[in-house]
Amino acid sequence: MKKSTPSEDRWIECWTAPFRRQKTSAIRYSFGHDCAVLRSPSKRNDLVLKTDAVVEGVHFTPATPPAWIGRKALARPLSDLAAAGAVPKAALITVGCPNPAQARRLRKVYLGLSALAKKFHLHVVGGETVRTRQLFLSVSLLGEVAPGNSPGRSGGKPGDHLFVTGKLGGSWPHRHLTFDPRLAEGQWLIRHRLVSAMLDLSDGLGSDLPRLARASGVGFQVDPKKLPLAPKTTPRVAFSQGEDYELLFSVPPRQVALLRKTWPFPTPITEIGRLLPKARGFETGGLSLRGYDHFR
Amino acid sequence: MKKSTPSEDRWIECWTAPFRRQKTSAIRYSFGHDCAVLRSPSKRNDLVLKTDAVVEGVHFTPATPPAWIGRKALARPLSDLAAAGAVPKAALITVGCPNPAQARRLRKVYLGLSALAKKFHLHVVGGETVRTRQLFLSVSLLGEVAPGNSPGRSGGKPGDHLFVTGKLGGSWPHRHLTFDPRLAEGQWLIRHRLVSAMLDLSDGLGSDLPRLARASGVGFQVDPKKLPLAPKTTPRVAFSQGEDYELLFSVPPRQVALLRKTWPFPTPITEIGRLLPKARGFETGGLSLRGYDHFR
Repeated sequence: MKKSTPSEDRWIECWTAPFRRQKTSAIRYSFGHDCAVLRSPSKRNDLVLKTDAVVEGVHFTPATPPAWIGRKALARPLSDLAAAGAVPKAALITVGCPNPAQARRLRKVYLGLSALAKKFHLHVVGGETVRTRQLFLSVSLLGEVAPGNSPGRSGGKPGDHLFVTGKLGGSWPHRHLTFDPRLAEGQWLIRHRLVSAMLDLSDGLGSDLPRLARASGVGFQVDPKKLPLAPKTTPRVAFSQGEDYELLFSVPPRQVALLRKTWPFPTPITEIGRLLPKARGFETGGLSLRGYDHFR
Repeated sequence: MKKSTPSEDRWIECWTAPFRRQKTSAIRYSFGHDCAVLRSPSKRNDLVLKTDAVVEGVHFTPATPPAWIGRKALARPLSDLAAAGAVPKAALITVGCPNPAQARRLRKVYLGLSALAKKFHLHVVGGETVRTRQLFLSVSLLGEVAPGNSPGRSGGKPGDHLFVTGKLGGSWPHRHLTFDPRLAEGQWLIRHRLVSAMLDLSDGLGSDLPRLARASGVGFQVDPKKLPLAPKTTPRVAFSQGEDYELLFSVPPRQVALLRKTWPFPTPITEIGRLLPKARGFETGGLSLRGYDHFR
């Protein structure tokens, strides 16, 4: 897995420019957030949409246990739904597969995916199979969230406290395949309206925190000594390794005491810094702003 | 594009077995239909979900104009929504891309896709970009249809008349890239409740008609002389070539006169045969039951 300064965001912005010009009241969030959020025509629940793909040689290797490949393919977009506070409802799976000789492997991939779907009461309702040179799985999810509750990445304000769930920097060798998406935690945070912005840490705090800050139009300050470290890791690794799949969220100052008092999960939460006025920029205490970049 | 007896359906049935056991009142249709159809919790509209992928070397070549690649990637799943009578609402796009040197090509791909989305008032609300050895686009769609109106593939009855829209066998060299999905036609047929089963012809009548018949538990009879042929083609080609993206639908005998009288579109409709009791099997007037198979 290669790392570098994030050029990926700029490429994607270029390609997707035609879509970013769309403005309609039916869309609460689209590009630049973990999930798209659509206003439900019935005004009952907002609809939450997310798509994500895992590719052999990028997200897993030929030696990865097949059930873990399927598990990861579903767990990654579930982690994005967690950041939107959404309840997953249905999944579509597209598989690109080199040839039918891989049928046994693929059956195990599906079983791993199916077991995780069952755990979260999610129905796999359709899919597509295509022949490709490289195994990949593309998973699209439909979820629901109470109308207007999902904060996206753009609601952070200067002065908000920054929190993360769990520990950072422990994704290798196995946790990036076997992690549990923080769905219950994300849903609880959104339901109690405790957060101003939230995303899931897929590319590393050093990539994802700047995304939250840019979307919110703010700066930030992070204290390397405060990062909750996985065993045998360093703040530098925790900041840049990626694939933590923990939640990063900002909490308005008046909500912080309530959050600490009422947090009901065994998953730890740790305050790592604050959002700042935009002019203050990104203060990392010496850590490099970087993370996983698919194109470098 | 290789053709053979359809083994693809059997592989996919094997892989997706864990999902097919799911039974819940929230799902009207899932595997074995063109789209998944979910009962809306609000009882207002059913939600329609579809995912589809196009891959370089399978669905297009390095020489294909990039705008047509994007157009096809979206038009194919729109054709499935047409078969469900659904109105498309939102799309998610995943792109697998060899490297950023293809940035200009990819920008044109997106522009082609964007132009078709605009035509059908569809919003592209999100996506994902991954690095792959082979260019592919995976498109997932959310649509809506009046509750209970979508017939799926399974409602055909012996005696129902079989119709197709448009002409068959003319997908090469260009029409498979530039066709217009029959959304208005499919929506009209569903709204007027004139069809008992419907699907879109992606793999060829010789593959897709048996799918409709198996899903409905019936046989069929097709008259090769009745097939509406594209210029310079033969019934054999029209039956097996695939990528027609026309609608195939069955109409109860009592509705046929009304259909013929009220059909409001310039797109022709042609009666090609009838559904039969299951025991009669598949009567093709000498044409081979075959179509495009991704794995042979």
